[in-house]
Amino acid sequence: MHIGILTGGGDCPGLNAVIRAVTLALIKQCGAHVTGIRRGFLGLLDRQLLPLDEAVVGGILAQGGTILGTHNRCDPFHYFAEGGADVSARLIAYVQELGLDALVVIGGDGSMAIADKLSRLGLPIVGVPKTIDNDLCLTDRSFGFDSAVSIVAEALDRLETTARSHGRVMIAETMGRYAGWIALEGGIAGAADVILIPELPYSVAAVAEVCRRREQEGAGHTLICIAEGAHPRNESMVVSQTLVDSPDPLRLGGVGAALAHQLQSRLNSEVRSTMLGHVQRGGSPTAFDRILATQFGWAAAQLIKDARFGRMVVLQGSEMRDVALAEVAGRNRLVPLNHPLLLTAQGLGLCLGQ
Amino acid sequence: MHIGILTGGGDCPGLNAVIRAVTLALIKQCGAHVTGIRRGFLGLLDRQLLPLDEAVVGGILAQGGTILGTHNRCDPFHYFAEGGADVSARLIAYVQELGLDALVVIGGDGSMAIADKLSRLGLPIVGVPKTIDNDLCLTDRSFGFDSAVSIVAEALDRLETTARSHGRVMIAETMGRYAGWIALEGGIAGAADVILIPELPYSVAAVAEVCRRREQEGAGHTLICIAEGAHPRNESMVVSQTLVDSPDPLRLGGVGAALAHQLQSRLNSEVRSTMLGHVQRGGSPTAFDRILATQFGWAAAQLIKDARFGRMVVLQGSEMRDVALAEVAGRNRLVPLNHPLLLTAQGLGLCLGQ
Amino acid sequence: MHIGILTGGGDCPGLNAVIRAVTLALIKQCGAHVTGIRRGFLGLLDRQLLPLDEAVVGGILAQGGTILGTHNRCDPFHYFAEGGADVSARLIAYVQELGLDALVVIGGDGSMAIADKLSRLGLPIVGVPKTIDNDLCLTDRSFGFDSAVSIVAEALDRLETTARSHGRVMIAETMGRYAGWIALEGGIAGAADVILIPELPYSVAAVAEVCRRREQEGAGHTLICIAEGAHPRNESMVVSQTLVDSPDPLRLGGVGAALAHQLQSRLNSEVRSTMLGHVQRGGSPTAFDRILATQFGWAAAQLIKDARFGRMVVLQGSEMRDVALAEVAGRNRLVPLNHPLLLTAQGLGLCLGQ
Amino acid sequence: MHIGILTGGGDCPGLNAVIRAVTLALIKQCGAHVTGIRRGFLGLLDRQLLPLDEAVVGGILAQGGTILGTHNRCDPFHYFAEGGADVSARLIAYVQELGLDALVVIGGDGSMAIADKLSRLGLPIVGVPKTIDNDLCLTDRSFGFDSAVSIVAEALDRLETTARSHGRVMIAETMGRYAGWIALEGGIAGAADVILIPELPYSVAAVAEVCRRREQEGAGHTLICIAEGAHPRNESMVVSQTLVDSPDPLRLGGVGAALAHQLQSRLNSEVRSTMLGHVQRGGSPTAFDRILATQFGWAAAQLIKDARFGRMVVLQGSEMRDVALAEVAGRNRLVPLNHPLLLTAQGLGLCLGQ
Repeated sequence: MHIGILTGGGDCPGLNAVIRAVTLALIKQCGAHVTGIRRGFLGLLDRQLLPLDEAVVGGILAQGGTILGTHNRCDPFHYFAEGGADVSARLIAYVQELGLDALVVIGGDGSMAIADKLSRLGLPIVGVPKTIDNDLCLTDRSFGFDSAVSIVAEALDRLETTARSHGRVMIAETMGRYAGWIALEGGIAGAADVILIPELPYSVAAVAEVCRRREQEGAGHTLICIAEGAHPRNESMVVSQTLVDSPDPLRLGGVGAALAHQLQSRLNSEVRSTMLGHVQRGGSPTAFDRILATQFGWAAAQLIKDARFGRMVVLQGSEMRDVALAEVAGRNRLVPLNHPLLLTAQGLGLCLGQ
Repeated sequence: MHIGILTGGGDCPGLNAVIRAVTLALIKQCGAHVTGIRRGFLGLLDRQLLPLDEAVVGGILAQGGTILGTHNRCDPFHYFAEGGADVSARLIAYVQELGLDALVVIGGDGSMAIADKLSRLGLPIVGVPKTIDNDLCLTDRSFGFDSAVSIVAEALDRLETTARSHGRVMIAETMGRYAGWIALEGGIAGAADVILIPELPYSVAAVAEVCRRREQEGAGHTLICIAEGAHPRNESMVVSQTLVDSPDPLRLGGVGAALAHQLQSRLNSEVRSTMLGHVQRGGSPTAFDRILATQFGWAAAQLIKDARFGRMVVLQGSEMRDVALAEVAGRNRLVPLNHPLLLTAQGLGLCLGQ
Repeated sequence: MHIGILTGGGDCPGLNAVIRAVTLALIKQCGAHVTGIRRGFLGLLDRQLLPLDEAVVGGILAQGGTILGTHNRCDPFHYFAEGGADVSARLIAYVQELGLDALVVIGGDGSMAIADKLSRLGLPIVGVPKTIDNDLCLTDRSFGFDSAVSIVAEALDRLETTARSHGRVMIAETMGRYAGWIALEGGIAGAADVILIPELPYSVAAVAEVCRRREQEGAGHTLICIAEGAHPRNESMVVSQTLVDSPDPLRLGGVGAALAHQLQSRLNSEVRSTMLGHVQRGGSPTAFDRILATQFGWAAAQLIKDARFGRMVVLQGSEMRDVALAEVAGRNRLVPLNHPLLLTAQGLGLCLGQ
Repeated sequence: MHIGILTGGGDCPGLNAVIRAVTLALIKQCGAHVTGIRRGFLGLLDRQLLPLDEAVVGGILAQGGTILGTHNRCDPFHYFAEGGADVSARLIAYVQELGLDALVVIGGDGSMAIADKLSRLGLPIVGVPKTIDNDLCLTDRSFGFDSAVSIVAEALDRLETTARSHGRVMIAETMGRYAGWIALEGGIAGAADVILIPELPYSVAAVAEVCRRREQEGAGHTLICIAEGAHPRNESMVVSQTLVDSPDPLRLGGVGAALAHQLQSRLNSEVRSTMLGHVQRGGSPTAFDRILATQFGWAAAQLIKDARFGRMVVLQGSEMRDVALAEVAGRNRLVPLNHPLLLTAQGLGLCLGQ
């Protein structure tokens, strides 16, 4: 039995924990031979491999990123390096040449869409969901998300001391272009006073009002957590989308900087913004993510052992299950407006921009 | 509406997050007046109170411990300060004197047993589960546990560098007198090679064999994570319980030190043990625990709002629910021997002492 | 004996440790009465005080920011709230009214310049140097700097995993408008491949060449640490200063983003930039900074005890000494081009932009 | 030019940073060929090598431990594996066979004593001081110490929340068998109320008195930081030394547990002790230690470049200098009883056991 593994899309804490668990499980349970594919699907086109065994995966559980490397633009059905040509046949031929009995694809919705297409063309594929934003369908959580939320919370802890010392409004801009999960959980964990997410267009006036009330009532400072995809209510979604895709000068500094600009003109307090940026997705995973990634890797190995291909492992409630790749591909999971955490935040008096 | 809150039993990261959420939710939703009771049930006997409002709970979310203080020997039905007398009537009278409409009790199985008895005597009580060990019945997780697991994983990360540099066997002893959750999750997250929990009596010979094989096969070092309640297979449970309750000199240094002693005589490598101790339960909660504690606090406030007394909030799967206090009181949740995490650990080749 | 303490300028980890040490030392050694002045010199104008005693300072050592609050625009010789009027006489009168025997001013070069002027007008003042940037004259180190360097190093650790996984150029922009200490030490500690500081104008071509060489030679990724005041060699200092003071659109995202833009056009690899921003100055101080701040506070109390006013405590080598306020006021300490750390960085093959 | 490097004695955060800096400096400056010796002096006897180049040392700066491995019992003048024989001639012959032009020895006083003897026998050796305890002569600091102090301070932060919540006396036992540097700096940074070090024999009664006063005066809890080599005043040094070398049952749990036992009988509050153990010396070094270790490595390479053998690099004040190996070998640097930090601690009202 010879199994290939690749990691696609943006990097994420926990990828190495999945690689380790899949590899160890397949070796221990099935005596499998395991080969890593370098740089996502690209490695199946330019033939870059990394053989995996116990020694190679021995010390990687706690390491950030992926020892296999990744690539976030390689779609074999529209290959960027060959003018958008469909080179999937070449990829499949190489998989057969390698003698792979199955391929484990660890990736986000883009990678799962490719995996689904390859699966329909006959490749035995098992998917593992990877999304720092926690916005993949049908899985309650994915690894990397807890790490990102932790970093946001720690950053808010730090910003709070400055906010309090200066009586300032401090804004932290988090990842989350379409879904607000990171800002929502990070904001709650970091004791933000205002949380702004893409799913709930906000009113600048309402946010300013909260800051002003806090200025007057003694707290004196306000902590705002805004997702990069959040947008003011009066901007239509279309305009907002344009801004996201081709930011104008005012947005160059990010939506946090834009909000700071808008709030500053309405407030006496100083307003400062920090875009947390790429530190949210790098570094060693939290213990939670290491365990979850290990469970995902183990579950993926079980699907392979049972020859249940075309499926992706998911966490539902506290159980590991699996769903068809087709069900996941190309779909996003936004924060539902009646989500318990949203209701909790509102009930505790946090401002959600309304 | 006037609500009291107390924290009982050992301290735990996230207690302040619960206190904050209960207080804010009751003030915002019900316009309630909220009073903290100091030092657990003791404060209802020696009349120590701390009035709670938005200002008091404003900055406590990230703080470890409990601003109310706690006490882990005060049972009003067997009051230690009065020769074991039942002073529950005095406690109830004081609650009535204070005009409390309800009492929120944040505590472990001991506190829930007391809360259940008081509830049967007519006190309107709502419980919030607190257990660093994650061993309370009917709730999948409680706050503090993720923080403890994180600290164990970080300690194992540190010990691993020493183990690897010296080719040593390094042992970390974690909390968990009856249940092995912390050692199990902490050990998986910290890449332990051997995990020993109370639920699975271990064989010293089997553990030594793993260390010896690793000595010879090149890894050269072994990382062991052992719960304080783990015991060798040949000791009967009775003997073991005696050891736990009145430790003999050999156990004075803890079960980790005892295991080190036993392994050292069987191995060439140096064996060293570290008892992680109280650092596992102190300090700022992880982001995960801050969110979970906030949700518990919010859910407890909803029970009060709806006058659903005699119940404790729980997390089941990913949902907040509630159960009768009587169902929880005095029961422990051990690691089931078919738990998915145990199977995962075994499947990845970790030694569980067998 | 009645002593006042204030914190001026931007906040900085360790301010509370100084406040605590000054307060405890004066109480224990001199039986002094200690009063905190709120919000820097502003509190001596709008009469906001916070009495300090052992209980108040008991738990603040590890807290970020300043419990006294601070203000970074209040100069009593040019009072912003009264059209730039000189209100120093009013301030001095209030100090006399309060019966202060001395005033401890914890602040940066701006605060020391004010302290020096007030000192010449007869106020008994002792200064404690505060500069996150480590650029105050005559002191080798100040508290807060080690904390900032730690945060930069940790951020680079995180960014490295993304850089390595994607084969990217990752840029971290640090604080340091005039002096490059944070970028230099943070960059060395975080294993940056390129470090760009204000003292050494850089060549974009040279930096691109380093990235390109690394692309080809196998490392595949490059980590760049750039101080916010760093500027390309071909820009004259005048132009650069203008950019710093009134940033054009290209600089809105910071010098890191501008460099990313310039490098991207010269490279195949993706280039990404993160501005670390305010998280560098918030949060709990490192152990090193807690100790240094405690020593500064203790030394300031000794100056007061010995009635040696008009002086600021400094660290020179490993000794606490003191210098005249006038020697420090308004002067910056840049990284000398022959500084051992610069030579070390160059000697290890790091690119400094040349 | 062919240079060997080895690491001896106990592991310590920053060893890899030294290895990296020595290697890079020698390659970049001298075009040297660099070979790592595995497991300290042992590797020069059983011929275990690890060739070092830029790729090997590329990612190790932030890693704890030593990639070369270490051994803390191998003395070629009394070789444990051959009945204490002097095998130094064999070691020197192997060094010549390898064609090493010089050897860099990173180690503590034991390793420096060996290095000094080998140097007198003609081996061109350069030493780099390694001591987690900060007790090597003639250098103000060594790498690893700041990391250990940070871990102690963080542990005290955690223990404080439990102490405060329960009104307990919490004891943390740190490393430091002969010198109290870690307990002193860690205790100050972690806001300990009592610091006990080997240099100052303590009075149990005095410590109990401090705890009792705090019980009564409202703080209610006490934080004690004790070095493993601290001993009560009434024990003679001889007895104490015996206890350190062959601990009786009462000391099996460590001096912290012994102190807890003694205090408990004198106090109402609960007393708890935690031995921090090996976590103090493992894991990634602090930014400070990474920089210091890098500077040491660079300085060692300069000594080699300049053929200045038989010397060890040291930090004096803020300058890198070097001293003769003979001056360092076998000597310890204790905390002088008039050290500024001791005076500061006393002046702030901390109890030092008197």
